[in-house]
Amino acid sequence: MSQFWSSWFREYPDFGGMENPGYRTGSFDGDDDDDEMVDIAGVTLDFSTTDDAPPLSSGGYEEYSRNSSSSSRAASMNGNGPTKLVDPLEDPVPGVGTYEDFNTIDWVREKSKDRDRHREITNKSRQSTVNLLHSVSDAFSGWLLMLLVGLLSGALAGGIDIAAHWMTAMKEGVCVVHFWYNHEHCCWASNETTFQERHHCPQWQSWAELITGTSEGAFAYIVNFLMYIFWALLFSFLAVALVRAFAPYACGSGIPEIKTILSGFIIRGYLGKWTLMIKIITLVLAVSSGLSLGKEGPLVHVACCCANILCHLFTKYRKNEAKRREVLSAAAAVGVSVAFGAPIGGVLFSLEEVSYYFPLKTLWRSFFAALVAAFTLRSINPFGNSQLVLFYVEFHAPWHLVELAPFILLGIFGGLWGALFIKANIAWCRRRKTTRLGHYPVMEVLVVTALTALIAYPNIYTRMSGAELISELFNDCSRLDSSQLCGYQQPANNTDTGVGNTLPDRPAGPGLYTALWQLALALVFKMMITVITFGMKVPSGLFIPSMAVGAITGRLLGVGMEQLAYYNHDSIIFKGWCSQGADCITPGLYAMVGAAACLGGVTRMTVSLVVIMFELTGGLEYIVPLMAATMTSKWVADAFGREGIYEAHIRLNGYPFLEPKEEFEHSSLAVDVMRPRRSDPALAVLTQEGMTVGEVEALVESTHYSGFPVVVSQQSQRLVGFVLRRDLLISIDNGRKRQEGVVSSSQVVFTEHTPSQAPDAPPPLRLRGIMDLSPFTVTDHTPMDITVDIFRKLGLRQCLVTHNGRLLGIITKKDILKHMAQITNRDPDSILFN
Amino acid sequence: MSQFWSSWFREYPDFGGMENPGYRTGSFDGDDDDDEMVDIAGVTLDFSTTDDAPPLSSGGYEEYSRNSSSSSRAASMNGNGPTKLVDPLEDPVPGVGTYEDFNTIDWVREKSKDRDRHREITNKSRQSTVNLLHSVSDAFSGWLLMLLVGLLSGALAGGIDIAAHWMTAMKEGVCVVHFWYNHEHCCWASNETTFQERHHCPQWQSWAELITGTSEGAFAYIVNFLMYIFWALLFSFLAVALVRAFAPYACGSGIPEIKTILSGFIIRGYLGKWTLMIKIITLVLAVSSGLSLGKEGPLVHVACCCANILCHLFTKYRKNEAKRREVLSAAAAVGVSVAFGAPIGGVLFSLEEVSYYFPLKTLWRSFFAALVAAFTLRSINPFGNSQLVLFYVEFHAPWHLVELAPFILLGIFGGLWGALFIKANIAWCRRRKTTRLGHYPVMEVLVVTALTALIAYPNIYTRMSGAELISELFNDCSRLDSSQLCGYQQPANNTDTGVGNTLPDRPAGPGLYTALWQLALALVFKMMITVITFGMKVPSGLFIPSMAVGAITGRLLGVGMEQLAYYNHDSIIFKGWCSQGADCITPGLYAMVGAAACLGGVTRMTVSLVVIMFELTGGLEYIVPLMAATMTSKWVADAFGREGIYEAHIRLNGYPFLEPKEEFEHSSLAVDVMRPRRSDPALAVLTQEGMTVGEVEALVESTHYSGFPVVVSQQSQRLVGFVLRRDLLISIDNGRKRQEGVVSSSQVVFTEHTPSQAPDAPPPLRLRGIMDLSPFTVTDHTPMDITVDIFRKLGLRQCLVTHNGRLLGIITKKDILKHMAQITNRDPDSILFN
Repeated sequence: MSQFWSSWFREYPDFGGMENPGYRTGSFDGDDDDDEMVDIAGVTLDFSTTDDAPPLSSGGYEEYSRNSSSSSRAASMNGNGPTKLVDPLEDPVPGVGTYEDFNTIDWVREKSKDRDRHREITNKSRQSTVNLLHSVSDAFSGWLLMLLVGLLSGALAGGIDIAAHWMTAMKEGVCVVHFWYNHEHCCWASNETTFQERHHCPQWQSWAELITGTSEGAFAYIVNFLMYIFWALLFSFLAVALVRAFAPYACGSGIPEIKTILSGFIIRGYLGKWTLMIKIITLVLAVSSGLSLGKEGPLVHVACCCANILCHLFTKYRKNEAKRREVLSAAAAVGVSVAFGAPIGGVLFSLEEVSYYFPLKTLWRSFFAALVAAFTLRSINPFGNSQLVLFYVEFHAPWHLVELAPFILLGIFGGLWGALFIKANIAWCRRRKTTRLGHYPVMEVLVVTALTALIAYPNIYTRMSGAELISELFNDCSRLDSSQLCGYQQPANNTDTGVGNTLPDRPAGPGLYTALWQLALALVFKMMITVITFGMKVPSGLFIPSMAVGAITGRLLGVGMEQLAYYNHDSIIFKGWCSQGADCITPGLYAMVGAAACLGGVTRMTVSLVVIMFELTGGLEYIVPLMAATMTSKWVADAFGREGIYEAHIRLNGYPFLEPKEEFEHSSLAVDVMRPRRSDPALAVLTQEGMTVGEVEALVESTHYSGFPVVVSQQSQRLVGFVLRRDLLISIDNGRKRQEGVVSSSQVVFTEHTPSQAPDAPPPLRLRGIMDLSPFTVTDHTPMDITVDIFRKLGLRQCLVTHNGRLLGIITKKDILKHMAQITNRDPDSILFN
Repeated sequence: MSQFWSSWFREYPDFGGMENPGYRTGSFDGDDDDDEMVDIAGVTLDFSTTDDAPPLSSGGYEEYSRNSSSSSRAASMNGNGPTKLVDPLEDPVPGVGTYEDFNTIDWVREKSKDRDRHREITNKSRQSTVNLLHSVSDAFSGWLLMLLVGLLSGALAGGIDIAAHWMTAMKEGVCVVHFWYNHEHCCWASNETTFQERHHCPQWQSWAELITGTSEGAFAYIVNFLMYIFWALLFSFLAVALVRAFAPYACGSGIPEIKTILSGFIIRGYLGKWTLMIKIITLVLAVSSGLSLGKEGPLVHVACCCANILCHLFTKYRKNEAKRREVLSAAAAVGVSVAFGAPIGGVLFSLEEVSYYFPLKTLWRSFFAALVAAFTLRSINPFGNSQLVLFYVEFHAPWHLVELAPFILLGIFGGLWGALFIKANIAWCRRRKTTRLGHYPVMEVLVVTALTALIAYPNIYTRMSGAELISELFNDCSRLDSSQLCGYQQPANNTDTGVGNTLPDRPAGPGLYTALWQLALALVFKMMITVITFGMKVPSGLFIPSMAVGAITGRLLGVGMEQLAYYNHDSIIFKGWCSQGADCITPGLYAMVGAAACLGGVTRMTVSLVVIMFELTGGLEYIVPLMAATMTSKWVADAFGREGIYEAHIRLNGYPFLEPKEEFEHSSLAVDVMRPRRSDPALAVLTQEGMTVGEVEALVESTHYSGFPVVVSQQSQRLVGFVLRRDLLISIDNGRKRQEGVVSSSQVVFTEHTPSQAPDAPPPLRLRGIMDLSPFTVTDHTPMDITVDIFRKLGLRQCLVTHNGRLLGIITKKDILKHMAQITNRDPDSILFN
């Protein structure tokens, strides 16, 4: 038993010995099984050394196919029916046209496939009523799917909110009457609660009260403290243990991987059932443990998992990687919509930040799904205030043009912090990947949790959850507010000034000074702990911690401005708009602007961020301050490096992601990037006729390329088409097994007509059906900026390079990424996948 | 004199005899002069027969270059400097790389050009501080431009609003004290006005009062009526006369042309100074004349003109057609932002409806510009209520799920009306183009105005302007409302029920019944008159008339529902949510939903429409009804034809516009679309060496193609590059004039090295510099859906087709459009431009 525990704490058991079912023989119909448990639990993820990225058997070779030919040859074992003559032109071999794990899809092929399918349905629909109904149901299946995604995601988000509230409260105490009530509900249900004392009721007992019978004194404090640490450690241990045991992909925020998946990469199981289940449970645990992380980013992952799983209900989406990515783009919008109650902001987030291919149809559907999700969440009403939004804010005072100066200051702070955070976090994550630190993920989580709990408990602003903190900082002080942050000196003529909720600026009282000190300490703590928290092996979002840092800074600046205005209302700056007794500075607005600035610095979001914040307040009025701060923050942060945190993590993990926002600035030509290089051996090509099965097999065996151009003849090098290694191997195997007479000396024929052969020759193997007859070509003189543009816009995997009509070489997405890495003086071998 | 008038009324004078300065010799630096007066006023627009589209000299030939070779040869007259040896490789000939009017730009080339420019500035910036400053100012020039566009557009929109208000009021009377006040301002300024009687004050006198001294009786009514018609006719005559005389491009809404321009077409002068000035003046006149048209669409045109003119301040945007289109996309957002006070909706409108190439950078900048414009407009405060929005609405009652049924009904109505309107309007516009009707544009406008004024005056709902009508229909009835629409029977216990503004549902009174009849008549009138109004030769937007139709229908249905609920509050449908004395149905909300549905049916906007409407109300609450209606409306309308009104007008005018939203569904291959067809003579190609200047000139003269592929040799047909006709002619002329020894027998050389020649041969003309070394190619087997995708996404003009590495043919954008027309059984010759 003790050995079991020590193994948990020390190092992950070696999954590597287990055969990865993802590569198991005969998995060529693999696009269906990406939410199977076996697929996920058994991923050969060397969890202790790499960050979310499965290892390659042998580093980063170009165009390396991880599919060994022996396993693919065994693939056709599946179809061991009666041997018959199969013409690949008519009856596609199962497996042809699917993708392997950790490979990039061919957008053009996928979209073309979908158009073929659609064309077929449309043509059939004219034949009979049943087919017409099928066509109509096919057209509406997208909307139905969106509805389901919205409903499911909204429901799950509501559940997560409720569970996290309850468990967060459990760290402090328990509701003795109804233990399943959280602190707020417990006291609401009580009859003895007054509005003033709404957080104190006899039903709710802290752990000290329960154990020692008293809630006062040093001993009670220590008991509460210890219980707080105990629960925090328990929750975080459960979180990391569950992630580790059942779904390694459930850790982190998931947004970098979703970006990569949306750009056309395949990570099987990343959006599967198990990942979803484990992510939901561990997200609640991680949030409740009090770590400096948020649930907003992971909610995007949860929504994408829902969408991916629901895609299996519809053939249209199950079978097409491009169509499925449209749904996932919409799901990303749904995630943000439920996280912030901001459907429009969610759609813009998906458009701006996450999506790669976002047709207008998707825009409309995303919006629909985001709305459905937001309203589902509202009907669950997890915050108990029937507000759609997480932080409902209502400001009363308008802002003045002079205030733009502090807002821009907040923008500068946000930009600086964002740049610094990214650098520090990436350095830490790289250290985790490369040193022994990464071998103890459970230990790491427990140590960080203990540290967080120890430091956080004594300070009320760090003890409360990030969302609560932000909510309190955003709030304007109303007359009845009893919070420390509103500890102003009451003016003498208490009843005269101010109507309703608007209160004049007042001098700060001792309560506020205490609050400011505590906030300053909380700021330093949050800034440091978030750097090491993000990237641990638990689900962790960045939105809330970033916003918290900004909100604290903003509130501090806001209170400072308020006091400045109060004591200097006759100076030039304030004269004219801020007379004595007026309510001119709203510290809550500063907090909000600061939060936007910091979040913008970290993620480099722009429009979506402003719109999300706008949806929180509902007033167009405050867009200008938000915009000024966000813009400044982005400019300042970009001056230190153009990558946001998600792109930085994508690069750290070596995913093949072509950033659509960044322009390719270098003046190289296609000929500089293509393979083979001048010193390399010539490009491995197939000829359209004249090669035997044995020769083709030998060529495939001797190289690692994932595809081969087909030319008219070795001598002319005129291009005919392109064949993928995977398709080639499957088809040859299939031919050998099923087609009579195909032996090693059979000719492989890619032409339309069968060439004349000697009468005693074995029957040829015709493979025109698996050849891509329209491979993309560029000339050797094409500037790389144009080539990169083509790759991005069309979603290519590879592109052939010609010179005066002759085939010269090939450029893959990986070649481009390596070239870009070289230009910016980074290690080209950091690009792991193709 | 009388002859002058009769000529005005009968037929436009023939501009055709005047030489079109747009095609004047030596205009190759023409991208600078598109806002010159001479260019615009002199456009050979056969205004009486074509609709916004200049005629082609000879129909619609493929790849026909409207630039006769003689004029382009004369082009080089410009550069009659000292004869020196110019190597085109080093010193580009002026004019090479620019475009002619009514041609499509090459997006790839333009973007590549801009990247080159940027690279140069970046490289230089490392050399000196001045260059660094230049680089920084270059980077910020985009933002400065956006700021200017926002400020100017906001100011112009404010001016238009104020002028239109004043002139609309002038049709009814005049403010005797301050004649420059409109009705409202006049009575506000008066001390004798009470709130109840806020529209009656002694300072404001109707024309009858001024002329006859009395405002009562039949005679006064007739005087007012006649004055109303007189002003309406005067305004509309001035509008059409100004448009006709100074800026023919100023008519219509402008959105179809802007869509086409943004997709890469060049229409010189369409966004020039004169168009802007005339459009502003005539827009005010047209709106004031009481015609059934709105100013929202034309405001988009106005904003785009502002942007285009301001682009001339910055070299970066002046010289690059692609960059300029980014700014124009943002300007379209600005236009909608000032039209509706909806910045986010404006950005989404630009993204969804207008733009073709919309990088994320543009999204952010559009948003900035839209905000600046909205706030500029608000600081001008043309509506006098310091609201940002045109129709400020505040609803109090929530809606109930049961109400979705009438909302969807409204959606169905909107869809049906949209489809019907498009069909009717296009049929009418086609009739105008093809029959003698189009020869009398001034007469047409006057007749329609007279008709409108005659029918509109007696009915108060048609007499008021469209915007006022919508505003009244959207409004919820408050207790103090004196309008006819709120003519309910007051309940007996007047003071008991209802708190603040919420009033319970009440039975309809006689006032309301009168209003309903008038509204029904107004509906019929608006539906008919809008069909013939949109497309006349005055600036005319469609948003307001469409919304008016929908709002009337919605209000009628809403009042009907309200009465139904009032009298049947115990039936199953209403039981439980609509008890007696409750405020459950809001007819204003129905009006709003109806307006959205009809606008959606006509324009097929989706997200942007919902967001614009959402920004009008400010409540997320009402998004669901809006969305349900918009979605239904789009589905219903799409069932009758997938084109919105703008796409229909684009098609009517034969613009080369590749709809990015529509999928290409047919299964043809590139070989089916390319030229030459099987029966045609072979493709005209140049060889990279061996052809003489004379031979090249002869080939160019004998064909109409706008570009020629360059091959290795006639026999091998291996592709080297592509040369544009225009560039070729300019360069040959330039060589003949400036380069010593170039005669007809000189060899034209496209290779890098000069081939060996006989020693006595004239020096060769080296033209590699003007050859595009990276022409786009597809294979003959490429499915057309993929080819269309490539054209759309990369913004190509033409694409070469190869088979097994040999050049086979060419596909131009026009070929694709013709092919698409053929498939859908339309006349392929309706595609006019290339």
